[in-house]
Amino acid sequence: MESVKKWDIFELTFCVENMSEPVQAGALKAAFHGEKETVEVESFYDGGNVYKVRFMPSYEGHYTYKVETGNYQLNKKSDKYEGEFEVIAADGGNHGPVQVKNSRYLAYADGTIYHSVGTTCYAWLYQTEELQRQTLETLKNSCFNKIRFCIFPKYYEFNENEPQYYPFERGISRGQDEEKAAGKIPITFPQTKEAKDIRDFNFYKPNSAYFKKVDDQIAQLRDLGIEADIILFHPYDKWGFSTMEKACNEQYLQYMVARYSAYHNVWWSMANEYDLMPFTKEEWNYYGRLVRQNDAYGHLCSIHNCMGFFDYTEDWITHCSMQKNTTYEHVEKTEQHLEKYKKPVVWDEIGYEGNVDRGWGNISGQELVRRFWESVLRGGCAGHGETYIHPEDILWWAKGGVLHGDSEPRLKFLKKIWDETPGGCLKAINEEPFDEVISIPVEENKICNWMQTTWCSYELHYFGIGRPAYRILELPEDASYQVEVIDTWNMTITDTGVHSGFTKVELPGQEWMAIRIIKK
Amino acid sequence: MESVKKWDIFELTFCVENMSEPVQAGALKAAFHGEKETVEVESFYDGGNVYKVRFMPSYEGHYTYKVETGNYQLNKKSDKYEGEFEVIAADGGNHGPVQVKNSRYLAYADGTIYHSVGTTCYAWLYQTEELQRQTLETLKNSCFNKIRFCIFPKYYEFNENEPQYYPFERGISRGQDEEKAAGKIPITFPQTKEAKDIRDFNFYKPNSAYFKKVDDQIAQLRDLGIEADIILFHPYDKWGFSTMEKACNEQYLQYMVARYSAYHNVWWSMANEYDLMPFTKEEWNYYGRLVRQNDAYGHLCSIHNCMGFFDYTEDWITHCSMQKNTTYEHVEKTEQHLEKYKKPVVWDEIGYEGNVDRGWGNISGQELVRRFWESVLRGGCAGHGETYIHPEDILWWAKGGVLHGDSEPRLKFLKKIWDETPGGCLKAINEEPFDEVISIPVEENKICNWMQTTWCSYELHYFGIGRPAYRILELPEDASYQVEVIDTWNMTITDTGVHSGFTKVELPGQEWMAIRIIKK
Repeated sequence: MESVKKWDIFELTFCVENMSEPVQAGALKAAFHGEKETVEVESFYDGGNVYKVRFMPSYEGHYTYKVETGNYQLNKKSDKYEGEFEVIAADGGNHGPVQVKNSRYLAYADGTIYHSVGTTCYAWLYQTEELQRQTLETLKNSCFNKIRFCIFPKYYEFNENEPQYYPFERGISRGQDEEKAAGKIPITFPQTKEAKDIRDFNFYKPNSAYFKKVDDQIAQLRDLGIEADIILFHPYDKWGFSTMEKACNEQYLQYMVARYSAYHNVWWSMANEYDLMPFTKEEWNYYGRLVRQNDAYGHLCSIHNCMGFFDYTEDWITHCSMQKNTTYEHVEKTEQHLEKYKKPVVWDEIGYEGNVDRGWGNISGQELVRRFWESVLRGGCAGHGETYIHPEDILWWAKGGVLHGDSEPRLKFLKKIWDETPGGCLKAINEEPFDEVISIPVEENKICNWMQTTWCSYELHYFGIGRPAYRILELPEDASYQVEVIDTWNMTITDTGVHSGFTKVELPGQEWMAIRIIKK
Repeated sequence: MESVKKWDIFELTFCVENMSEPVQAGALKAAFHGEKETVEVESFYDGGNVYKVRFMPSYEGHYTYKVETGNYQLNKKSDKYEGEFEVIAADGGNHGPVQVKNSRYLAYADGTIYHSVGTTCYAWLYQTEELQRQTLETLKNSCFNKIRFCIFPKYYEFNENEPQYYPFERGISRGQDEEKAAGKIPITFPQTKEAKDIRDFNFYKPNSAYFKKVDDQIAQLRDLGIEADIILFHPYDKWGFSTMEKACNEQYLQYMVARYSAYHNVWWSMANEYDLMPFTKEEWNYYGRLVRQNDAYGHLCSIHNCMGFFDYTEDWITHCSMQKNTTYEHVEKTEQHLEKYKKPVVWDEIGYEGNVDRGWGNISGQELVRRFWESVLRGGCAGHGETYIHPEDILWWAKGGVLHGDSEPRLKFLKKIWDETPGGCLKAINEEPFDEVISIPVEENKICNWMQTTWCSYELHYFGIGRPAYRILELPEDASYQVEVIDTWNMTITDTGVHSGFTKVELPGQEWMAIRIIKK
């Protein structure tokens, strides 16, 4: 009997015989039945007369399936209306999809806490195959376990090359002919003169040649242990993909869910900078719910802001996908957002390491790493990006390629320390019962933590841009604590020994230091 | 005829013959009459049977005075009940007292805009004469034109030495004997065991030996062109000076005004960290108004916070004397405070350059200078302090001495550029009429200033921790602009020539850069 590993893809291919105009999503339905779950999924059209159904089993054991074909006939030679297969144990490295563990933390389906260290290559899917290979090679050697990217091509500075494939076939969408001819269909961003000429796409016809490439890349990310944070809509558009009519958007979203929800590493990001797009809040809610209702696996789903945060309390949103929208204080508000939204906080954009002529893309590696530490120590997580000007004009944030900056090794170092957290979960607020929790009293410039009177069994103190030459710890007399000095930039951990009572810890008087205190 | 320079001190000394228990302030009154002003001031007791009256004339010309002695008799040989004198032109370097010019700016009495670059040596008056000399020498060679210091000695870490003089004579204050003996009088900060033993002061008897020293030092500051921001109350006390009874406080304040208001460089700071003291808001208002009502010259007067800002809209407050009370965003809110309080914003405490075990005292020189630039470019001003640990244990912020840090030369450089502002006044908000004003669009991380469409005749753009490798300026085609690249840390100004229209300015891709754009 055929077998598939848990959290892998079981795929069925059908050659429908009597369909003149292909139905992109929902032509066929399949129900998969195992001992612990019954899952219904829809097909997607994959070119020619080929339809596919993809299913991700969440349990081991015997499964059967049945296909409902409606008015269509399957190819009698190759295709079956029902069947069975065996789900065997997952690969050791496959922990399943990332899910919401509780109001603060994400975890893989097998219970392993997920410490997200993301990065961003918005338009990497649209670059040459050689450059895409290079991007994957860079990711393979990095600490990143999530990447944000757009499904639609991006038109923006440093993203001005035409893509090799388009997401839709050339042609005219039904009902749009006249308006398009009259140039009446608005283009979100930017308003270019040439935009009109190249907008001859049929938004009802996904280009399967492109999406087959995307399949490969999402699978490659999956095999590298990297979550694919798929951006479904974005405003940096000259082709009209940001202003499709409602029916096109609906079909596109159903198609995306049918095609990709069986990949365990998929996250849905409804938009990048939703507030630069011409959708109302109600429309976003409608489209968000559409994705969630179609997605049989409950993949993570959020929406990313430019100016104002979306209302993350909406039922279809699993976590906060935030861009800093203030200049000076943003990740430092992580606890407030956790408290307000009661959902995990993922800072997907906190400024990029680089030197472009934009405030969002010219911070130092040190500052980016500082923002990561602040996010993590306050109970959230963050995303990286890189925008260094260089002769090849290939900016990681835009196209991928190789990294030129200094932050990635330091993020790897942070992740190592983060992963060593007993229980996995850091948090800035020390809640009762004190001795049970892992406490992270983040150093506030203003707060003098020599006033600290309660000590947890594991503490990580971070000083950011503060540069103390020493730190007084008034530890309990009746217990012993190992105290380590951590240089978050030079990536060293120095053990100062075991201490009790009044303890003076020598520090180098430099920025970006931390202390770890572990009860023995 | 006797003469005195404008904004200098005209002092009268009286030897009162029939006063058994000296009255510290208000024993005598003197009215000074010139062509343009009539000013009434009170005497202060200066030890022995000596009373003094000090007067600062604000105009040139002939003045007469009359002394009201109440029940007292002057020494017939030496003292006169009336007299006359001539006020001649001020010294070139004496611009008169600093006053509020408008809701944003401070200016000297002669109209010269005052660009405040302050520093802080809280307890310098209580150190050895040698150390005080060294402090004055350091100030002389610095850019600082204001210093904050306490009149009462300070008890705090790095401030634990007993002063050489005390502000009051030893003894018991009337009415306090029993309570003091019972140890019932509260001590604000800190609660030390030895405090009770050394609190044998008579709070009704200022120690003229001490105040004569203070006279000299305020005069020395004045002669160096440095404003003396005198802190009248503070909570870092083990002697009881922060918990005197109302009548003592009243007499002390009258005494201070009588003694020091004739020094043109005096500012009144009602308190440092008022909110750590046991006074109510109403009491602060009462004492603040008392100072202002007694002060014939309208010296600047404010009150400095720890946690929460005082209500700077109170009538007796001339300007905002602020301590940052947030960790990450503080001076960056200068425009908001200007808008809210409609009074000049002086950031008297924004963190100190140093490496002590406190968030308020361990920022880098770079960060301190950045905060200054942000303050200044947003229409405010700021104060420096230094807290470097070193073997002698003399921290500038506490005791004065010499500077060990890197920020002072950079503040001097900032002041040079600030002083070059046409009209003197920088502001972050460009108000109509645009072409008249000096505009300072401070670079926000978030704002892309390539969207800038209005250009003023003088612009200073600051990038803070942003590190653009270049800056695109879309200048008007029909005008010419000199563009300078300013490295605020390395203290260089590079002229890139005169430009019109699309201009790409090369930058080093390092932090703390600025651009100055001057219409030709």
